[in-house]
Amino acid sequence: MENNKVYDVVMIGAGPAALSAAIYTTREDISTLLLDKGPVGGLAAVTDWVDNYPGFPKGVAGLELSDLFQKQAERFGAEFEFGEVSTIIDEGTQKRVKADSGDFLAKTVLIATGSDYKKTGVPGEKEYYARGVHYCATCDGAFYRDKHLVVIGGGNSAVQEALFLTRYASRIDMLARSKISASDILQRELAKNEKITVHLGTTTDEIVGDPPAGGGKIVKVVGTDTASGKKVEFPTDGVFVFVGLAPNTGFLKGLPIELDEIGFIKTDIGLQTAMPGVFAAGDVRHGATMQIASASGEGATAALMIRHYLEDVERS
Amino acid sequence: MENNKVYDVVMIGAGPAALSAAIYTTREDISTLLLDKGPVGGLAAVTDWVDNYPGFPKGVAGLELSDLFQKQAERFGAEFEFGEVSTIIDEGTQKRVKADSGDFLAKTVLIATGSDYKKTGVPGEKEYYARGVHYCATCDGAFYRDKHLVVIGGGNSAVQEALFLTRYASRIDMLARSKISASDILQRELAKNEKITVHLGTTTDEIVGDPPAGGGKIVKVVGTDTASGKKVEFPTDGVFVFVGLAPNTGFLKGLPIELDEIGFIKTDIGLQTAMPGVFAAGDVRHGATMQIASASGEGATAALMIRHYLEDVERS
Repeated sequence: MENNKVYDVVMIGAGPAALSAAIYTTREDISTLLLDKGPVGGLAAVTDWVDNYPGFPKGVAGLELSDLFQKQAERFGAEFEFGEVSTIIDEGTQKRVKADSGDFLAKTVLIATGSDYKKTGVPGEKEYYARGVHYCATCDGAFYRDKHLVVIGGGNSAVQEALFLTRYASRIDMLARSKISASDILQRELAKNEKITVHLGTTTDEIVGDPPAGGGKIVKVVGTDTASGKKVEFPTDGVFVFVGLAPNTGFLKGLPIELDEIGFIKTDIGLQTAMPGVFAAGDVRHGATMQIASASGEGATAALMIRHYLEDVERS
Repeated sequence: MENNKVYDVVMIGAGPAALSAAIYTTREDISTLLLDKGPVGGLAAVTDWVDNYPGFPKGVAGLELSDLFQKQAERFGAEFEFGEVSTIIDEGTQKRVKADSGDFLAKTVLIATGSDYKKTGVPGEKEYYARGVHYCATCDGAFYRDKHLVVIGGGNSAVQEALFLTRYASRIDMLARSKISASDILQRELAKNEKITVHLGTTTDEIVGDPPAGGGKIVKVVGTDTASGKKVEFPTDGVFVFVGLAPNTGFLKGLPIELDEIGFIKTDIGLQTAMPGVFAAGDVRHGATMQIASASGEGATAALMIRHYLEDVERS
């Protein structure tokens, strides 16, 4: 497609950070296009139930919440396009955002592509996503008071989150493919904790629910004890996977945008990246919390920063 | 009163930042007390209508929104106390928060006392607060499309916000008590702008509505031309006051908490102040946006940082 309009801002991503930013920019007559390769709402849209987004005391379905965000942005005139972005070209007074669906021109760009939780890829993981298989203890731990859990992972954050989950769960089986690679303090804490049983050298092969195709409840996790080669089974009410975060910043390769060692975008206090006029907000940014409220708040702040940037450019 | 309980966190303030933080902390079984000298909700509770808090596409009354925040925090067990805090004493493993209603003990403290807009103090300002008299162009400018406005103030942000308001207003009278003290770029922009008439050396004496006691609509602003000593009148639909922000940090005097030149609290990237275990979030923090979404997002982030701090302390 061809679209010769020069937007005040093109936002890459259409999750909570971009949607919140768009509510602010469009309400201030800053022309705004949101560009996403997937459905509007990002991870929020595929979150079963959101208990801690402020303003919804009884909780709210993730899909409903992201619909509300989208309606609000549309009310003030936000435009949406599908498209997977391959790069951003700085053409001086404007930026060219190159996507598989066409080129889009803008005075400023907001990168709000978020992060994904890394997956194990085993059968059952996808089928029970968000309904038994979880990636965020802060988000979903409270649903497992006095329940039995399996935690998959052996790194620092896996140990930290497993310890945290003992506030709720009555028992946790922790499956580490090889060994535990966490700080000494965490290792000691883990060894002391009576609720957690660590299974070293144990692969995760399958997450089994009833029925297996999803829609019901998780029953057990099947793995292999790599030392003996024997199958092992762990009956459970839920599974938390902590094998890392993957920020969606691959398309920024070769651009003068500073990333941290994992690939999160570094910005200044005004949320601007090392590429002038290009801002970042939400879970793609260094310091990501994977919380809708935090991403949304950063989106609002980014919108104000973009407004000031546009005003400064117009005046100079 | 006496209360010997040692809370995991005492939050000073009960506006959007503290309420959001409390939703997170209490949901994670972190015992939480919110201490405020005024009603719950902070500035949000006295905001007539909030159009840009994400999740409410039709907008929401400020009081209703802050009620929803409070209900959500109470659902998970947040406690509330009235009290004006005079100082925080570091007693090693715990902090003593001294208030006029008693002492409160906590392992960590979150300062979320917000900022106030400075007032002119003239008759009519209070009566028409939020219903004709405003302090935030981003929040309320869009209510004045094709209307006539008076802007009070002559500093950098007054000029910036007046220029911004010309996106909506058809005409603006700008009243500066003495002269305009803004950057050269802004001064040039102001001179060029045909919608704004600047009245130098003009005091603001009264904001007059019909009826004068509030409840109706603003009619005019009455001032004095200080050169001639004559009364001057400016018919208008609304008034925006931009005479500065006052962060509520007076009670921190003498504490090892770093403030900026205006009095906003400086924190590290983890929202911790220079006093270990004491965090800050929302509009009291350096970089305040005076937006509910931003404050609320920072509250959520602060809660996660407090949780990690408490875990680290317990382990060491």
